[in-house]
Amino acid sequence: MKILQAQLAVSSSKDEVFQAVDEVCQQAVKEDASLLALPEMFCCPYETDKFPVYAEKEGGDVWTRCSELAKKYNIYLSAGSVPELGEAGEVYNTAYVFDRQGNQIAKHRKMHLFDIDIKGGQYFKESDTLTAGKDITVFDTEFGTMGLCICYDFRFPELARLMVLKGAKVILVPAAFNTTTGPRHWELMFRAQAMFNQCFVIGTSSAQNLADTYHSWGHSIVADPWGKVISQMDEKEGCQIVDLDLAEADRVRQQLPLLKHRRTDLYTLEEK
Amino acid sequence: MKILQAQLAVSSSKDEVFQAVDEVCQQAVKEDASLLALPEMFCCPYETDKFPVYAEKEGGDVWTRCSELAKKYNIYLSAGSVPELGEAGEVYNTAYVFDRQGNQIAKHRKMHLFDIDIKGGQYFKESDTLTAGKDITVFDTEFGTMGLCICYDFRFPELARLMVLKGAKVILVPAAFNTTTGPRHWELMFRAQAMFNQCFVIGTSSAQNLADTYHSWGHSIVADPWGKVISQMDEKEGCQIVDLDLAEADRVRQQLPLLKHRRTDLYTLEEK
Repeated sequence: MKILQAQLAVSSSKDEVFQAVDEVCQQAVKEDASLLALPEMFCCPYETDKFPVYAEKEGGDVWTRCSELAKKYNIYLSAGSVPELGEAGEVYNTAYVFDRQGNQIAKHRKMHLFDIDIKGGQYFKESDTLTAGKDITVFDTEFGTMGLCICYDFRFPELARLMVLKGAKVILVPAAFNTTTGPRHWELMFRAQAMFNQCFVIGTSSAQNLADTYHSWGHSIVADPWGKVISQMDEKEGCQIVDLDLAEADRVRQQLPLLKHRRTDLYTLEEK
Repeated sequence: MKILQAQLAVSSSKDEVFQAVDEVCQQAVKEDASLLALPEMFCCPYETDKFPVYAEKEGGDVWTRCSELAKKYNIYLSAGSVPELGEAGEVYNTAYVFDRQGNQIAKHRKMHLFDIDIKGGQYFKESDTLTAGKDITVFDTEFGTMGLCICYDFRFPELARLMVLKGAKVILVPAAFNTTTGPRHWELMFRAQAMFNQCFVIGTSSAQNLADTYHSWGHSIVADPWGKVISQMDEKEGCQIVDLDLAEADRVRQQLPLLKHRRTDLYTLEEK
């Protein structure tokens, strides 16, 4: 299963962004990729006060463009994340996934909001304008079951484990770490979640632009079920293609049966 | 709080081992260390058929020697782990901790047994001769609350998290990875558990001896609540001293409030 990750530049123009997405779709088809992964907030500046401005309902313009591209290019599209307008006017950080026919097959609303205040480093409070989701998201594809969460969600071992217990062998993570947390934790977090859960992890980030107020770390990454980095980008705009053999997750779980060895007689981890 | 980790050579002679432990106790006192940490199975060859042979009841000879050394040198002693003989003749992989007066203040029986069969790599089945423990272990010291587990236990995010939720700001892990899993996962696992749980982690391994049947990875390690390695040894016999500021755990948890941001309304992790 080939995936293409597009580390897109953030732009305030939807048309500009979708021009770029169309181009990477063409590249994905050319490279025979089955899934295209986009970054967190790929068509909205990563600024809390912009989320309500750019928010659209499910089925809105951005959603429709994504669905149409998936169908047009006959490709699974993990459409990064976008600000979603809820029924009561609330705003979510939402990730959609479309199948090759353009049907929405997964939707995840970021359930852990990124509120951080590091001394001498990053200040950011998503909760200023966003509402948190409340569902754990896994979905089926022709390649197997996948999990889906967004950036800060992936810092919580409980969520990754629950997705894996629901069958995920691949976890898709549209994300945008910054230049404070990126060098400290980005690669470590992806490798660790892959190792503990013996699954593939796919972290797709926006590209870094020092003219933006939020400096994305970039470094889109794929790690395998041993926790080894298969491929990682730098901070610049671009793409990478990675070929995954999902049966490797089964082989690793057989040789080192971590999931089987969990002491579920002594502790329980459950979705409420 | 200064700790001294002793990466001891495995020996089949108890007297030889305790001669070495006495020497590191003296070094610890000289260096003003408050805690001495020893490796997993520090006075028994790491071979499943040796565990029943070397097993002693709590309060037996090895236990008494450890207690006496802690008292004699007025030091906290995390006495690695030893094969413990249970009431019904069963054998555990057990870690004891003694306070400065030689009182046992913690006891952990390895609760995840290491049964592994890696293609072209390591085969080892602790469950051939060992019985698994069933308790999560934290204990109080003059420096704060600490957690205690053994080697393979630390591969389970559930256990580390539960120790931290019970107050641990330091987790002691007597361990002995091997030359298959060591290079792949040793440092990654310690850094990751420290990062996810925002605590200090202290992994103390036996030294590598290629004449042994089990080739220990060594590399005794300390990582801080940011997931950064403070100090790591190579595979050879020796010691390292690390100075910890436990208040750093509180500072990290304040700046990046991962523990507070857990969605306990959506998932639960509990000790049974």
